[in-house]
Formats: sequence, structure tokens, C-alpha cells
Amino acid sequence: MTLDKINIVEKMGLIEEQWSPKIIAQMNDYHVKLAKIQGEFVWHSHAETDEIFYVVVGEMGIAFRDRDVILATGDMIVVPKGVEHKPFARQECQIMLVEPAGTINTGDAGGERTIETLEWI
Amino acid sequence: MTLDKINIVEKMGLIEEQWSPKIIAQMNDYHVKLAKIQGEFVWHSHAETDEIFYVVVGEMGIAFRDRDVILATGDMIVVPKGVEHKPFARQECQIMLVEPAGTINTGDAGGERTIETLEWI
Repeated sequence: MTLDKINIVEKMGLIEEQWSPKIIAQMNDYHVKLAKIQGEFVWHSHAETDEIFYVVVGEMGIAFRDRDVILATGDMIVVPKGVEHKPFARQECQIMLVEPAGTINTGDAGGERTIETLEWI
Repeated sequence: MTLDKINIVEKMGLIEEQWSPKIIAQMNDYHVKLAKIQGEFVWHSHAETDEIFYVVVGEMGIAFRDRDVILATGDMIVVPKGVEHKPFARQECQIMLVEPAGTINTGDAGGERTIETLEWI
């Protein structure tokens, strides 16, 4: 049990690699993660879980099969389970994710961008 | 299923009453809530769940039985289940909460500040 506070800006500063979410907190069996993203990710979905995206700083988009949703600082979206999506960002964007511990970044898609074990920062 | 984005600042602007969390998003069986708080809440704990506090704007504290933790904009803390706590804020503070749907604001304490059914905004 830890009762330490976690500063998002400070934690974000520890992240160097893009598309490599780091865990900053656990609530029950859920993880809060931070990531820096730029460019395009891969199309994927998560069969078992919804996923929260929250833009801490910057602008990003999430492509769905029928449209793109553009998110700026302070915007949140919940991607429902099973829905194919592809995050993208023209410039580096800082995001927070909330999803069950063990959720794989590439979901059902797999491939070289998969990170099986996430680090805590 | 909704794929609409949710803007935190805009949603926060819809909240008038203090200590009355509003639901802005659902992920699986969890709710994301926003609240404005000022003054002191009641001592309580949640026997069944951890609880995320995230400070969107302002400064707040959480009193624990052995110490206070002060949180400012961008700070997060996870209050573990079963741990007694009492949120407080000298000036109005805007916060985000993440916890299971149905989590009662006053936990095991009950009393007049309990809000049984939260509104969506």
C-alpha cells in the first residue's frame, strides 16, 4: 500500500520512448498509464475491455473504421471493447490511459509494436 | 456505444454544486467522475474498492489518520480500499475520480452528505 501522490508532469518527464506506455498507478486490477505518441500506431481492438484515452498535453487522433476523432488537451474518450481503432498524432502528444492490468497495447493485432510487460515509472 | 469525446474543462463548467460528483464516462464497470470541492468532507472509507483522485485544477488535501497528503494540479493519488480518508480543500478545487460504478461518495460513513444516485453530465 502506498499513499504517495503521483505527479503527472513529473512522471511524463521520465518517458523517452514513444508508443511505450508506462504504469504510474494501480487501482484495484486497473492500471493508469502514461505514454508519448507520435506518428501512426496499428489498427487493433481489445476484445475484453474498454479503454480510456485522456490527452494530457497535445493533440492526437483516433481513427475508427467510419471516422476519425480528434482529441486535444483535456479531451477524453472511451474506446469500447471490440472496436477497431488506430491512434495517431502528428506531433508528440502526451496521453494517459486507464485500462485493466495486463491489457496489451496492440490488442488482438500483435506484431512488432507489442509490449508484453510494461514498466512502472 | 458512444465514440464522442469528452472535454474535461467543458464538463467541469456544468458543475455548480460542490461535493456532488457527476459522471462523465464509463469504462467497463467503472465510472469517471468530476467534482468541485471546497471545505471539509467526512471521514470515510470504501471497504470494497480503491479510489483514484486526480486534481484537474487547484489544490486539495486528503487527510489520513496518520498524515495529510496535499495534492496540486496534475497530482494523482490512489486511496486504497479500507483506508479512512477525509478530502478537504481551502479554495474550490476541481477533481477527477475513477472508481467502480455504484461507489458511494461517503463510503461506509453514510450521513447527510451521501449522494446515492449520481447524475451524468
